[in-house]
Amino acid sequence: MPIPHYLHTKSIHPSSKMKMIHVLFLFALVSFTSHASVNDFCVADLKGPDSPSGYQCKPPNTVTVDDFVFSGFVAGNTTNTFNAALTSAFVTDFPGVNGLGVSVARLDIAKGGSIPMHTHPAATELLIMVEGQITAGFMTPTALYTKTLKPGDIMVFPQGQLHFQVNSGNGKATAFLAFSSANPGAQLLDLLLFGNTLPSDLVAQTTFLDVAQVKKVKARFGGRG
Amino acid sequence: MPIPHYLHTKSIHPSSKMKMIHVLFLFALVSFTSHASVNDFCVADLKGPDSPSGYQCKPPNTVTVDDFVFSGFVAGNTTNTFNAALTSAFVTDFPGVNGLGVSVARLDIAKGGSIPMHTHPAATELLIMVEGQITAGFMTPTALYTKTLKPGDIMVFPQGQLHFQVNSGNGKATAFLAFSSANPGAQLLDLLLFGNTLPSDLVAQTTFLDVAQVKKVKARFGGRG
Amino acid sequence: MPIPHYLHTKSIHPSSKMKMIHVLFLFALVSFTSHASVNDFCVADLKGPDSPSGYQCKPPNTVTVDDFVFSGFVAGNTTNTFNAALTSAFVTDFPGVNGLGVSVARLDIAKGGSIPMHTHPAATELLIMVEGQITAGFMTPTALYTKTLKPGDIMVFPQGQLHFQVNSGNGKATAFLAFSSANPGAQLLDLLLFGNTLPSDLVAQTTFLDVAQVKKVKARFGGRG
Amino acid sequence: MPIPHYLHTKSIHPSSKMKMIHVLFLFALVSFTSHASVNDFCVADLKGPDSPSGYQCKPPNTVTVDDFVFSGFVAGNTTNTFNAALTSAFVTDFPGVNGLGVSVARLDIAKGGSIPMHTHPAATELLIMVEGQITAGFMTPTALYTKTLKPGDIMVFPQGQLHFQVNSGNGKATAFLAFSSANPGAQLLDLLLFGNTLPSDLVAQTTFLDVAQVKKVKARFGGRG
Amino acid sequence: MPIPHYLHTKSIHPSSKMKMIHVLFLFALVSFTSHASVNDFCVADLKGPDSPSGYQCKPPNTVTVDDFVFSGFVAGNTTNTFNAALTSAFVTDFPGVNGLGVSVARLDIAKGGSIPMHTHPAATELLIMVEGQITAGFMTPTALYTKTLKPGDIMVFPQGQLHFQVNSGNGKATAFLAFSSANPGAQLLDLLLFGNTLPSDLVAQTTFLDVAQVKKVKARFGGRG
Amino acid sequence: MPIPHYLHTKSIHPSSKMKMIHVLFLFALVSFTSHASVNDFCVADLKGPDSPSGYQCKPPNTVTVDDFVFSGFVAGNTTNTFNAALTSAFVTDFPGVNGLGVSVARLDIAKGGSIPMHTHPAATELLIMVEGQITAGFMTPTALYTKTLKPGDIMVFPQGQLHFQVNSGNGKATAFLAFSSANPGAQLLDLLLFGNTLPSDLVAQTTFLDVAQVKKVKARFGGRG
Repeated sequence: MPIPHYLHTKSIHPSSKMKMIHVLFLFALVSFTSHASVNDFCVADLKGPDSPSGYQCKPPNTVTVDDFVFSGFVAGNTTNTFNAALTSAFVTDFPGVNGLGVSVARLDIAKGGSIPMHTHPAATELLIMVEGQITAGFMTPTALYTKTLKPGDIMVFPQGQLHFQVNSGNGKATAFLAFSSANPGAQLLDLLLFGNTLPSDLVAQTTFLDVAQVKKVKARFGGRG
Repeated sequence: MPIPHYLHTKSIHPSSKMKMIHVLFLFALVSFTSHASVNDFCVADLKGPDSPSGYQCKPPNTVTVDDFVFSGFVAGNTTNTFNAALTSAFVTDFPGVNGLGVSVARLDIAKGGSIPMHTHPAATELLIMVEGQITAGFMTPTALYTKTLKPGDIMVFPQGQLHFQVNSGNGKATAFLAFSSANPGAQLLDLLLFGNTLPSDLVAQTTFLDVAQVKKVKARFGGRG
Repeated sequence: MPIPHYLHTKSIHPSSKMKMIHVLFLFALVSFTSHASVNDFCVADLKGPDSPSGYQCKPPNTVTVDDFVFSGFVAGNTTNTFNAALTSAFVTDFPGVNGLGVSVARLDIAKGGSIPMHTHPAATELLIMVEGQITAGFMTPTALYTKTLKPGDIMVFPQGQLHFQVNSGNGKATAFLAFSSANPGAQLLDLLLFGNTLPSDLVAQTTFLDVAQVKKVKARFGGRG
Repeated sequence: MPIPHYLHTKSIHPSSKMKMIHVLFLFALVSFTSHASVNDFCVADLKGPDSPSGYQCKPPNTVTVDDFVFSGFVAGNTTNTFNAALTSAFVTDFPGVNGLGVSVARLDIAKGGSIPMHTHPAATELLIMVEGQITAGFMTPTALYTKTLKPGDIMVFPQGQLHFQVNSGNGKATAFLAFSSANPGAQLLDLLLFGNTLPSDLVAQTTFLDVAQVKKVKARFGGRG
Repeated sequence: MPIPHYLHTKSIHPSSKMKMIHVLFLFALVSFTSHASVNDFCVADLKGPDSPSGYQCKPPNTVTVDDFVFSGFVAGNTTNTFNAALTSAFVTDFPGVNGLGVSVARLDIAKGGSIPMHTHPAATELLIMVEGQITAGFMTPTALYTKTLKPGDIMVFPQGQLHFQVNSGNGKATAFLAFSSANPGAQLLDLLLFGNTLPSDLVAQTTFLDVAQVKKVKARFGGRG
Repeated sequence: MPIPHYLHTKSIHPSSKMKMIHVLFLFALVSFTSHASVNDFCVADLKGPDSPSGYQCKPPNTVTVDDFVFSGFVAGNTTNTFNAALTSAFVTDFPGVNGLGVSVARLDIAKGGSIPMHTHPAATELLIMVEGQITAGFMTPTALYTKTLKPGDIMVFPQGQLHFQVNSGNGKATAFLAFSSANPGAQLLDLLLFGNTLPSDLVAQTTFLDVAQVKKVKARFGGRG
């Protein structure tokens, strides 16, 4: 192999040579380097407005590694009506995932607890079992897909499907969730039906539940009307 | 303006000239014409498999205008438990919309009827009032958006949101629906919760409904367990 | 079935219990509720700038049901050169459709009128016949797809295709249009060719029309040059 | 509230009534139910061809819950040159994620081991620390983002970025990875540069490495030339 | 730095060691390698059907470098009615671009020639001047964007816009075109209006051209009716 | 053919008629024209923030043809360590391509020069040979795709793949590049590995290069540590 062209200046002091080459390099390939950090990622500026594609980008020169790291992905407090907790790392918690189409959450369910029926509008959920046992499922108008999961199991809940997770084991259960969106949202069915001011008669008419039942569950979830 | 170059052959008989020019034209710009009909649309071959982006395309030379026209967008039969009918022109009804991200449906609701709570996984719905009066709405965990609509009104239900439509007028109501997907699907909440074999205890636990209520509505929607 | 865990506190006064449970619930599942209203929709802030994915979102707490409702989807005034009117509910008219990939318009064509040749750059159009009779069509370099439509018929015009609609009946005609974009645009061919300052010679050269014809139609559409 | 219309036939035997109503229901809303299971998900038919949007869908009536569940998400064998193992649940392992834009993998790194420099073409990676300690990072032409991670930490590696993970702790390390693609791929830099027949001189010229170094690492990774 | 773990087996014969390590490597990281070639690209199987996202993929083990190389990107024959030629490297010519959202074409225009008004449905075109001089432009309903271009100039024609290119120099002109689609299509306005059987009266009504003019241009482009 | 409706007012002075008709036209079809220029393109306002979908749009009334034209697509200065130059027309150079999914660059490589190994995160590159001879290639974990290209040849490098271009001819070489993104970025492998402060030991561990080699190349590319 002949001596490569880029080694032909041998008499220059190494550190000087390095700087000179580096300068030449930067000069000639400026477009490579000047743009590269602009659009390869877009860390959310959470103080600015949101848009259909996500938040505006922080200026690249203000981005640090901490924008790409989320700490506090630990067990949530399950002392509540569901005996369950969801700890999310969505874009509003974790600006580094802005525009990247993925986020995660941690699910802790105490014995006897559950994450009730809910949907993520337009996001798929993938559940990784970590500890304990969870019975999970989703339904379509013509089929039911349900399974009891143990560590080593994964289950996917396709976008927009109503689904649930119940701790069906003898101790606490933990799972990690991956979503196909930086901001998947989460809509608990009970809150949608019973946590607002939609008249009980209207809820009954559009769910085929009894009005008395509607009023009873409304009382639990803070709904009125 | 000088005589354009393409008019310089005057002595040729018109019909001959036309053919000759046409041939030259086709020869030289063959790539324009040969590809143009391939990918500007993709009419579904409903006999073949579906894919995440839609059905395979029918061979362009078998496509006719009837692939792009749907007939039968007329009032459906509302003699049923909901006093309502939905007539869809989705890709499986209407192969011309394959891959084009849009479809429509017609909604007829008799007096006193309703389209109960339902979702379209990952499709937005836009409702155009045609006749009568409909009270419609959707809910998020923190807000309720409901309105009584008359002809001249339009309402949008963003993707994946649980929503309902009730005939709140004194006669029949008709609306046209536009969707942001060629195959929006439609999931009636009652069918998801009460139309399958999900055990009543599990439904109760994940909805906070009473078991007796669950069993009662299950009987109506054909569910077991 | 054992008594569910969330029913074990019986001695508390109902309204107190409700509040306490609600607070616990909100505390533990705060990420569910706090994010849910952020990104499930993005109502356009039309005072702010547009972006390739649409307008910035209005702050969620300022959104009301009226952002999701458009009123005035009524017959337009057809007393004009086309004997036709198009009433649009695009994102700039109807901020609730921002980022949702769908919008609608209403078409009224008086007897003898038409919507001349036009395109929607990158949006598919789906036409629902409501009243009267329309002959519509679109063309590719190798095929013509044209049909006479009556109420009960739907026709789809794939994205970017040149198409037209002519009232071919004996009275007025009305149709509703659905688009696969929140802002489909609409480009009337005559305005593109004859409504600006493109020199008549250049128009003639690039359309194969006679210069005299170009000048004549330019006079009608306000073009100069 | 008046007796709802759907309760007006009281004299019919319950089980008969249920069936009759169910039949009426299915008849009137057939389009709801017949399409719902077609396109809400698309389980991969791995025996058929792939496409730019993913694999063809299995016929919906052959889909079972096991298509949505992956078992074997367990520690891989780290007795190898990297002291590391990656267990993937990508679409080719897990057909239920086809077309859904998300997949996961498990990373086990023995003490002293590492996942060397690699990229996922066009997929973002999100790493959830489960056990031990990993020092990870990615680089752009103008910046270095590196962090030592412990359980409770998450780090995101934006799409297409070169990145690495090193076990920097005193024992084994485990992490779960979420990807923004059903088939993210994974390209180890050493395999790309040194595992094929690209001539050593050419590798040297295009990496600025010494030829001797190239040949030495080629020997390790099976490259020739 | 301590001796890395992967260098601890010194007594093995180099070639044996290489093979052994290579085997271990392949065994442990099999998922990296087995999937990597599946989805990083999808070379079109042009014998199979098209789909909304492109053609099916050729089996990866049948792909060769020639699938990624197109030869024949040379000057086309401009002896035709337009004095122009377009040589395309779209997916149907060049299967390697399938699903990748980009393709190119070469434009040769003899002195006095032009590429008449045309659109690419839903694809953006970017023109790079190589030789000669071209006057190009596109129009919106409210604006005209036209420029005379020389080598060193680039012009972009946003998706779906009607545009033209005229050789305005004294010799031949050459340009390269880049498109934001693997199959942009190309629709010459004259072919759409005058190359088919759309009745001349209908063309006149929907373009505001005189019927005589329509018939005259129809004769040139092979239209009837 | 009967006299068209739009020609029935014959007694009006032509210029007056034109204005009147034009006004009527604009009045009735205002939604066509008022929206058309809003969203058919979105020229970048480079002074504003970036977002995942690109920059905010300049107000349409401030857009001129010069936003759609880039001048200076000429040979770059190849007097540098690579004997090569890349001249880019990405969105930050050329605001008219914002949101349109395409951009271009020009590559000049002096005799003996090369563009070393690099990636474009998530963008496909298509290379058009203009002058001279380039040997180019990309690698996957299981395959090598390399070819010597001459004028008339095109080669595609699928998204995110590591690739290189070497001048293998006897004179200068020029190529034009098309990308499937308005801002493809470009990441030179040497800068990623050797141009920052990543400790040499860590680089060695994650690349299997010798530490001495790492330090040597670091000196060339300005890296420390």
